[in-house]
Amino acid sequence: MKAQVLKKYDDHLTASNWLSYEDVPDPTITKANDVIVRIGGAGVCRTDLHIIEGVWRPHMDPNADQLLPFIMGHENAGWVEAVGKEVENVKVGDPVIVHPKISGGTCLACRRGMDMHAPGKFPGLDCNGGYAEFLCTSDRNIVPLPKTLAPKDVAPYSDAGLTAYRAVKKATRHLLPGETCVVIGAGGLGHIGIQCLKAMCAADVVVVDKSDASLELARKMGADHLVKADGNEVEAVLQLTGGNGAEAVIDFVGEKGTTKKGLAMTRGAGSYYVVGYGEDIVVPTVDLVIAEKSIVGNLVGTWAELVELMALADRGLVNLATVEYRLADANQALQDLNAGKIHGRAVLIP
Amino acid sequence: MKAQVLKKYDDHLTASNWLSYEDVPDPTITKANDVIVRIGGAGVCRTDLHIIEGVWRPHMDPNADQLLPFIMGHENAGWVEAVGKEVENVKVGDPVIVHPKISGGTCLACRRGMDMHAPGKFPGLDCNGGYAEFLCTSDRNIVPLPKTLAPKDVAPYSDAGLTAYRAVKKATRHLLPGETCVVIGAGGLGHIGIQCLKAMCAADVVVVDKSDASLELARKMGADHLVKADGNEVEAVLQLTGGNGAEAVIDFVGEKGTTKKGLAMTRGAGSYYVVGYGEDIVVPTVDLVIAEKSIVGNLVGTWAELVELMALADRGLVNLATVEYRLADANQALQDLNAGKIHGRAVLIP
Amino acid sequence: MKAQVLKKYDDHLTASNWLSYEDVPDPTITKANDVIVRIGGAGVCRTDLHIIEGVWRPHMDPNADQLLPFIMGHENAGWVEAVGKEVENVKVGDPVIVHPKISGGTCLACRRGMDMHAPGKFPGLDCNGGYAEFLCTSDRNIVPLPKTLAPKDVAPYSDAGLTAYRAVKKATRHLLPGETCVVIGAGGLGHIGIQCLKAMCAADVVVVDKSDASLELARKMGADHLVKADGNEVEAVLQLTGGNGAEAVIDFVGEKGTTKKGLAMTRGAGSYYVVGYGEDIVVPTVDLVIAEKSIVGNLVGTWAELVELMALADRGLVNLATVEYRLADANQALQDLNAGKIHGRAVLIP
Amino acid sequence: MKAQVLKKYDDHLTASNWLSYEDVPDPTITKANDVIVRIGGAGVCRTDLHIIEGVWRPHMDPNADQLLPFIMGHENAGWVEAVGKEVENVKVGDPVIVHPKISGGTCLACRRGMDMHAPGKFPGLDCNGGYAEFLCTSDRNIVPLPKTLAPKDVAPYSDAGLTAYRAVKKATRHLLPGETCVVIGAGGLGHIGIQCLKAMCAADVVVVDKSDASLELARKMGADHLVKADGNEVEAVLQLTGGNGAEAVIDFVGEKGTTKKGLAMTRGAGSYYVVGYGEDIVVPTVDLVIAEKSIVGNLVGTWAELVELMALADRGLVNLATVEYRLADANQALQDLNAGKIHGRAVLIP
Repeated sequence: MKAQVLKKYDDHLTASNWLSYEDVPDPTITKANDVIVRIGGAGVCRTDLHIIEGVWRPHMDPNADQLLPFIMGHENAGWVEAVGKEVENVKVGDPVIVHPKISGGTCLACRRGMDMHAPGKFPGLDCNGGYAEFLCTSDRNIVPLPKTLAPKDVAPYSDAGLTAYRAVKKATRHLLPGETCVVIGAGGLGHIGIQCLKAMCAADVVVVDKSDASLELARKMGADHLVKADGNEVEAVLQLTGGNGAEAVIDFVGEKGTTKKGLAMTRGAGSYYVVGYGEDIVVPTVDLVIAEKSIVGNLVGTWAELVELMALADRGLVNLATVEYRLADANQALQDLNAGKIHGRAVLIP
Repeated sequence: MKAQVLKKYDDHLTASNWLSYEDVPDPTITKANDVIVRIGGAGVCRTDLHIIEGVWRPHMDPNADQLLPFIMGHENAGWVEAVGKEVENVKVGDPVIVHPKISGGTCLACRRGMDMHAPGKFPGLDCNGGYAEFLCTSDRNIVPLPKTLAPKDVAPYSDAGLTAYRAVKKATRHLLPGETCVVIGAGGLGHIGIQCLKAMCAADVVVVDKSDASLELARKMGADHLVKADGNEVEAVLQLTGGNGAEAVIDFVGEKGTTKKGLAMTRGAGSYYVVGYGEDIVVPTVDLVIAEKSIVGNLVGTWAELVELMALADRGLVNLATVEYRLADANQALQDLNAGKIHGRAVLIP
Repeated sequence: MKAQVLKKYDDHLTASNWLSYEDVPDPTITKANDVIVRIGGAGVCRTDLHIIEGVWRPHMDPNADQLLPFIMGHENAGWVEAVGKEVENVKVGDPVIVHPKISGGTCLACRRGMDMHAPGKFPGLDCNGGYAEFLCTSDRNIVPLPKTLAPKDVAPYSDAGLTAYRAVKKATRHLLPGETCVVIGAGGLGHIGIQCLKAMCAADVVVVDKSDASLELARKMGADHLVKADGNEVEAVLQLTGGNGAEAVIDFVGEKGTTKKGLAMTRGAGSYYVVGYGEDIVVPTVDLVIAEKSIVGNLVGTWAELVELMALADRGLVNLATVEYRLADANQALQDLNAGKIHGRAVLIP
Repeated sequence: MKAQVLKKYDDHLTASNWLSYEDVPDPTITKANDVIVRIGGAGVCRTDLHIIEGVWRPHMDPNADQLLPFIMGHENAGWVEAVGKEVENVKVGDPVIVHPKISGGTCLACRRGMDMHAPGKFPGLDCNGGYAEFLCTSDRNIVPLPKTLAPKDVAPYSDAGLTAYRAVKKATRHLLPGETCVVIGAGGLGHIGIQCLKAMCAADVVVVDKSDASLELARKMGADHLVKADGNEVEAVLQLTGGNGAEAVIDFVGEKGTTKKGLAMTRGAGSYYVVGYGEDIVVPTVDLVIAEKSIVGNLVGTWAELVELMALADRGLVNLATVEYRLADANQALQDLNAGKIHGRAVLIP
């Protein structure tokens, strides 16, 4: 089959053709619960850029590039092409979306529903992913799609969407009417998060972004207030919240100073959810103590949460803004993402 | 001042003029935290009928009608007319809505935010209420109104609305996208509850009622599915939920067989919320155990929850369907309510 | 192998030899994830009596005794005898305890950690159980035992213990220091529940039982207050709780009037947990509403909760009072249980 | 009356007599809900040293020492000496402990039970405290003491104990049997926290401290494992937890490197609770994201939580290790605390 392969890291993203478009062997069924998916859409994610520049190398590839070469792509959807002999939950031809983690199902994390904390592979991060015609995974990763949803239109939900959903879900479990949620960054994750917030709670949603185009996207997605990140965004949020700050702040950026500003926008007894990553959080202990703030890390989401997100999409409560590229044009998509040209989410299609 | 006074119970609601419209002394400030409210609107509630027919007598008036005569009316809103010398949270002229319970503020229930479980008076149930020109209460009961809201338009939120809100809030804390909430009864409480559900979670909302007019009201309030209570409502709900039943069922009726049907509509591991009251719940223990269902009682709501509900109303997320009557016509309003002629909520105005 | 087989129901438990001790074929591995366990201990449970008398027939065997004959026994522990080719979490020889439900692992209930709400078989209830030399189950049911624990000493934890643990765990999530938990029934489940309560929260534990021997067992297990169920037990509990009742009441009996009394012992805003079953709960809706009480059904527990319970046992925080019988003497054990002669829990050993 | 007065800050704690022992006017009742307490014991706290060295100046005294002079002491207990005319919850002579925050009772934070997040004074931090014969406070701050408890023996619970209790309570809401809680620092707060943990959950408690005397105190308080903070404490904790780290880490130190180590000891999906303060937390966002860790700030506790803590003390589940000093010897107590000579908690008595 054809696939987009990462062969070496590029620490400063100075190259232009990071991936190599090649013929590779088709994947095959080897275990009773394996499932092969014909890819209908593969999302292009900022994490792909981080992988290329080696941010994940210490975590996923600690032993001198042993991981390379491998096929990238961790946001996958398509149709079931073949199944192992004990697979019961899907059949050949079913449209499906693929949860990004292959979990085993018998450890305590799995048994408590926390799949992404189980040991296991992340296709596209530490084994072959979906920038290809086919992907081999397990029946445990597969979420059947409702009839209303086409694989290429939903692929980015499997990681970007799921990550946004999980962080938002945590916040909506405590956000009450009259309270405020700040969303920092209305890009690929943020624009999904805004819609989930509006669907799942009645809090006021304030969106902070430095791009007018992203703020306009946020407005269409239902944001109640827009704040331009022009250096005075903390003051603007404080003014919108009676000087107190927001009960929840969800930071989809996590770099270029958003962590300090995000914490400053967080009300006493409130929570700052960190989703995007890049810089260090630096905060005096006394500040966290006096204001009793929490900082909450967020990692993808569970299989069940992907089902929940598909229910939102099925009902039209969440819509993805996507830009399509051919699989052959993966490098162009990555370059456009890196250049900040994509509002919403890029998807590779066959 | 003028007031509507209950002088004797009417066990079977056979009389027509239950209340007596009379001149009574004006209330006066006696404690440092007293507040006198000039009534702008007083909601008319099924509980008023229950009080008249003596349902609450064992709880509120156990000693042979010592409570009578008293002024009814427990859903009150208006403007601050006078304040005690240590009142700081409101000033004369402020528009306010009155929480139905006068709590003391120093017991453990109060200190945990569970005001309605504290010892204290319920004006209109066990002391003089708001079917009058003025009401004496405490600064602890007073919720300032946003500028967008007029007292006569919001009075029923203080009890009916608050009760619906609290039950719905409990359900929304566990309802997830893809799950279902059944609302039994789209009357005075139900039509508020439906709106709160739509604002606060993404679950599918199924409304069950025997009245076409109430179902039409439910549709306007945002119900996703309407089920006519024609005897086959349990089957209809099971069909809408893949044979499983709903994760939450909120019963605003609680009589004429709804409790048995409501439990039958509840999915395994789900919760049946009882709000309306009248009949006995009869359920085999083995049924609760095998399906691990919960039955959850609901009592009004907290002061903070009334603030939350006002935030929903302020944002236009909840709207009351009201029918206005003059204070002098209280008996007419009660008769119309008893005859099932009111869709939405009756309010007495000066 | 030898096994104890149920061949016909006995509606009023009038017979004396309910089970037939027979030679039956050994179970065999047929699926990649099957596990065969050599039984070291099989708990004898009141549910076994309920099965014999047909209480579970409508749920487990609705079509005219098609289930019969089958091997009883749903509380099983032992050693792994053989495994399917894709089993990874245990190996031959490992000491294990067997969760009572064989769940599939791919449905939403499983993926949220709620195994016992998934479709699947309950060995000993709707397919062959552990009153035998060997049991065939799945790797999903198997919990490895800590070295400190012998199968015959822990078998009853797998259902009786797990059920008590789950109900107690729910209560301990809200019980605070200074609050009270009433335990009704200090028998097989209750004596485990009392220990779990003392280990997992600081609430006062009040135990109600009609048997002096059971109350003495409760005292040894750490109960703070003992109440003889002599007809005045509600008053006694109210007296111990300042007239208010307990924040949690866990009813391990569920028959002979305990449900009405248990609800009367429950404080406003409190929860009544029903675990034992037999009679109907009958309660006026107005009582649940005015006091805002909840009634909570309880079904076994999750796989993860069985791991948690084994952690308690491993640390010596929970101990089982067991009485051993030979597998050949199963009927004697059942008769002794039915006659109320067993304080603690009976276990069949090879 | 006699009182210990702070007249100027000492940035590096170089002086020896920080407080001045003086005659000052007795406090008087001015409001209907005022309460005057005759001090029976006043706890000496590290926060007092922080106040003296000016750490709290930016928060409590931002305008050039306008706060000085004032009486220190924020951990107070004693007997009611006088009450305002509308005080109902205590009477003259009652033994009481004083919650550290004077909250108003009508704001949303108060009404949700989060007293310490309400606007209001902290006696001993921003107005006169209890290093004196008498203290004027409000009926909202007063918790009646059970008969078993003497004021001088419990005074430090009102802040140090309450702070430890609240952090521990948060952790116990999620800690399950088989999980681990690390306590960093077994000093004044830590030795209370350890006891609360043992009383309120069944998790394994691992205590980390650099002092052998403190570790010995921890052992007596019930710690399951002791780890000397000798530079290898992270590795030691990982070894005790199967290489995974602990589900909860409660850091009562918050300086000299404990924050980085505490986070390293925290398991994926676990929470690091920061209670002690001093240094900055510095953590890469990617570390919080990949492991989905939370950092939770902790501020004192609620009035209701002080009631809960007194219930623990009343039952003997928590005991304070105290060292008594005369009020006249406050400076000696502070010097001994600063020199690390106090194991447990110092209390000033009349």
